[in-house]
Formats: sequence, C-alpha cells, structure tokens
Amino acid sequence: MANYVFGIDIGGTTVKMGLLDKEGNIVDKWEIPTRKENGGKNILPDVAAAIDSKLKEKSIDKSDVIGIGVGVPGPIDDNGVVHCAVNLGWGEFNVNDELKKLTGLTTKAGNDANVAALGEAWKGGAKGYSSVVMVTLGTGVGGGVIINGKIVAGANGAGGEIGHLHIEDNEERECGCKNHGCLEQYASATGISYLAGKHLEKWNKETVLTKADLSAKAVFDGVKAKDALCIEIAEEFGKYLGKGLAIIASIINPEAFVIGGGVSKAGTVIMDYVLPNFNKYVFSGAKECKMVLATLGNDAGMYGAAKMVM
Amino acid sequence: MANYVFGIDIGGTTVKMGLLDKEGNIVDKWEIPTRKENGGKNILPDVAAAIDSKLKEKSIDKSDVIGIGVGVPGPIDDNGVVHCAVNLGWGEFNVNDELKKLTGLTTKAGNDANVAALGEAWKGGAKGYSSVVMVTLGTGVGGGVIINGKIVAGANGAGGEIGHLHIEDNEERECGCKNHGCLEQYASATGISYLAGKHLEKWNKETVLTKADLSAKAVFDGVKAKDALCIEIAEEFGKYLGKGLAIIASIINPEAFVIGGGVSKAGTVIMDYVLPNFNKYVFSGAKECKMVLATLGNDAGMYGAAKMVM
Repeated sequence: MANYVFGIDIGGTTVKMGLLDKEGNIVDKWEIPTRKENGGKNILPDVAAAIDSKLKEKSIDKSDVIGIGVGVPGPIDDNGVVHCAVNLGWGEFNVNDELKKLTGLTTKAGNDANVAALGEAWKGGAKGYSSVVMVTLGTGVGGGVIINGKIVAGANGAGGEIGHLHIEDNEERECGCKNHGCLEQYASATGISYLAGKHLEKWNKETVLTKADLSAKAVFDGVKAKDALCIEIAEEFGKYLGKGLAIIASIINPEAFVIGGGVSKAGTVIMDYVLPNFNKYVFSGAKECKMVLATLGNDAGMYGAAKMVM
Repeated sequence: MANYVFGIDIGGTTVKMGLLDKEGNIVDKWEIPTRKENGGKNILPDVAAAIDSKLKEKSIDKSDVIGIGVGVPGPIDDNGVVHCAVNLGWGEFNVNDELKKLTGLTTKAGNDANVAALGEAWKGGAKGYSSVVMVTLGTGVGGGVIINGKIVAGANGAGGEIGHLHIEDNEERECGCKNHGCLEQYASATGISYLAGKHLEKWNKETVLTKADLSAKAVFDGVKAKDALCIEIAEEFGKYLGKGLAIIASIINPEAFVIGGGVSKAGTVIMDYVLPNFNKYVFSGAKECKMVLATLGNDAGMYGAAKMVM
C-alpha cells in the first residue's frame, strides 16, 4: 500500500499544499499563489507542477502516493464536478478528471467548507466522531456535514450550506444569496457587526463598544469585560446560531458540532450564548451532542482533503 | 447468493410481514398481531415463528435468505440498539442481536419512518434517487433522511426527526415533545385541524368548513372546491411545510422530497401550497429538487426494511 497523500486547499489568493503520510502526519506543507487570470486555467497545472517537484525533492515515487484530495471554494458534487467557483474564475468541469490527467494520480475534489469539516472530524476539534457538522463563522457562514465519516456533498454540491438556512421571517435586508433572513445575516462576523450597530443605536447607557469598531472581536471582548450592551448582542447572536444548530440536530442528529472561522477565535465564551439556545430549541432525542471549537485553523482543509482520498 | 429477504414493519397494533425476492418483488405479505403485553417481550419471538412457518410453507431453506430487515416505531441507532419504543413497551436492547439469536438470520433494524423513506427511495415515489428526504404527514409529522442510499439514523437514533424541527418562535402551545413551535404543530393532520379552528374562529364569510369537521381532509376538499377559508388555511400549512423543507434542503441538498402519510392523500393539491414556499425560502443552489408524493402507502416500511438488509 502507498504511504503518502496530498491534501490541497485552493483559496482565492493562495493554494495551501500539504504532503501527509498515511497516518495523517504532515511531512511538508507550503503555499503557491492562486493564478486566477484567464478563467483560472493555470491553477490546476500549477498544482500539478508543485506536486511533481515536491515528489522529486523528497525522492518519493508516484506509486507511493495514494492520491490527491482537493478543496475548492465552490459547489462540487460527489463526482468532482465543480458547478462554478466564482473566486477562481472557474465554470463547470470535472476537477477529479482534470487533475488526474495532469498528474496521473487519483484525485478527489470537494467543497472547501465540507473538506474542512472532514479535517476537523479526522484530526481537529471533533476527532473521534464520525457524524459531525462544522459551522465556519467568517465573513459569511460556511458549513460542512459529515455522516459516517463521509462528506454530504448534496445533489448539486450545495450540501452543508448552513449559512443560508432560513432563520428569520422578519428581515428586510437581502442576503448575498438574494434570500431574506439567512443564518449568515446574524451569525457571521458581518452579521454580528450588523447586530452590534442595531443594538448600539438604541443604547443610552455606558458601553465599551463604539461606532468605529463594531467587529465580532470588539463585541466578544466586551462580553469578556461584562459590558451589558455586548452581552445583549451576544445573546441575540446566540439565539440565532443556537436555534440554527438545533434545527440541524433535529434533522441529522450528529455526534458533534464544530464551530470554526474567525469569530470562533473569541473562544469558549461563544458557547455560553449558543448552548442555552441550542438546548432550548433542539428535539430532546438529539440533545446529546458535543459542541466544540475547531482546532486546525487554516490547516483543516489540507487535512480534510487528504482524508477524502484515503 | 441467496434469493429471498424478509421486510418487517412492526406497528403498535399489527406487524406487517413481507417476503420479497432479491429484486424487491413481493412473494408474500401478511400480518400478525403485535402483542404488547409484558413489555412487548413476545413480539420478536412471534416474528421469528412467523418467519419459520413461512419458510416451511414456501419450502425455502434458510441458506437462501439474505436476512431480515425490521422497522421499529422508536429511535434506533446504526447498530440496531432501540432506545425505548413506547408503543411496543420496549426499553433498550439490541434488536439485530435478539432477532438473529431467534432466527439464525442476519438482522438489521431501523426506525420505522427512516425505513419507510428508504422504501419510497427504492420502489416508491422517489424511485431512482439515492438522496431522499421523506416527510410523513400523519397524526404527527415523521421523517426519514436517506443519503447515498443509506438511512441517516443519527447518533442517538434521532435522525430524520423532521416533525420536531423548530419552525415558529411565537407559539404558546406545547408540542408532544415539550418544545414549542415544532413543524408537527402545523403540518400534521392534528396541526392542520388546529390551523383550521384558528382561522374558522375569525372567519365571518361563507365557507364549507364546519366546527364539526376540521380534519385535513375537510380542509383540502374545501381547497378543491375553491373555498376561500380552506385556501387560507392551506396557505398557512404550506408556508410552514415549504419553509421546513427549504431549511432541510439548505443543509443536505437532497435529490428529492417525498411527502407521505394520511394528509398526502389529498394529492397533488398539497404541492400547490408547499412548492411556492419551498422556492421562496430555499438556498438557490439547492433549489433543483424533485417534490413527489409517496406511492407505497403502508407497504413502504416493508420494502425499506427489506432493502436495508440487502
């Protein structure tokens, strides 16, 4: 049996490359730029060239490589067909076939958020669990659903689009997806800033929060300093996210939720606001559920991509 | 390879028994009473005895049987452990092990709603699809999630508990599960009667609906007769169910939804109220989704149980 695997996470600016052994230890990791010009047609050839030169450098024969796992920022179905990755300039084609043609190696591609979820389930915050839902709270809200150790890609590559779970009927602002009242509009970094602005406007007592900095970090720093306004904002954030996770649990009853992304850097304080709401809204039979923070940061995609092809 | 399989659906009153060939054709089907007395300890021995006598009757050797699939009205995990089936008087034990001990045949047990979903995906309304969510609109709302042809049982056997998906924040009535605002409180037969009563109370124009019959059938018969009140009720029902299905689609992006149960006997008229709301709330990337009615009725569980063990 072969001993090595590549885990590759293609982002809008850089491609994170990882060479791992079959136990999932990182042998080497590095980055190459993402060349998005000309519809991103250089990206996969650049990846293939980087793989070839790494194998030469390490004197590893291709027959000793299990395959290549690739995370892509866009909807990808179970067969590796990407349906348009705007950030890379890609239209529709089969990533598995294309990269296999370039490298001769078995390739398996998946959506980057789904792949990160698999990484956290394999080596990160949800290590040891096989049914895991990851929620990534960044500029938007991403997500990935893992059931029995496998990514739920969805019929159109839209599995795990937790950010666009409808959570609020009374919303006039339009979400990036054109709907109204998506989870992302309240639980992302951007969403928290919106909640912060809304609450600050009505606030007439003292607070550490200022109009100049309504970031998620400022809000949760304020929560840690017991600022009453920040606590009010965190409570609304927690109501939305806790309710969203409760809804997910009623449908697929996972073993664990993993919370990642920039907002999760606030740490376990987040759980103080999410957990009570999760417990309030979840179906009792699905309540027994771990709620953990992500631990792999930007490496989650690399690990998950590698795992996907193993 | 063996040629036969048993598909068994244990209900609170009768056990539906099916002997199928490996293509899924029914060779024979019959029922035995469910003896619930003494904590339901006779149920599995009764099933085993019925299997033995059917094999004798048909002169089929046990070596020619692939196994036994069993649907049980309660939460069951992937290993066949039932966590308390109130309607049968059962506590916690491993159904797979128990029935195998009694028959010598490989057994695989699952929750009855999940098993019915698998049946509809195999031979019913969603035939040909491998990622399917079934919603059963009966006295309550049941559900089953099938991904890549397999039941999502959930970590605690609570996968597919779609009836208890939180859908309404402003609800004072308590659901059977003790939460408030579950989908079941609006989309079940009971839920529709509740909506009907609420709307009828405020109605001061003509209507075919009467206080004496607020059943789902009366409401949808009224819709077919273009009764304005019934249409108003169907619209509210459709808003809840359409939104619920949209939320599910944003998470797992199935190929198809199957709507079954007593309420679905109203036929395709239901879709007129569910679909527009589904389309309004669903994430655009998950919109391409079949919405079909169940076709197997009470046989869905028998088919799904058989498929589970194949």
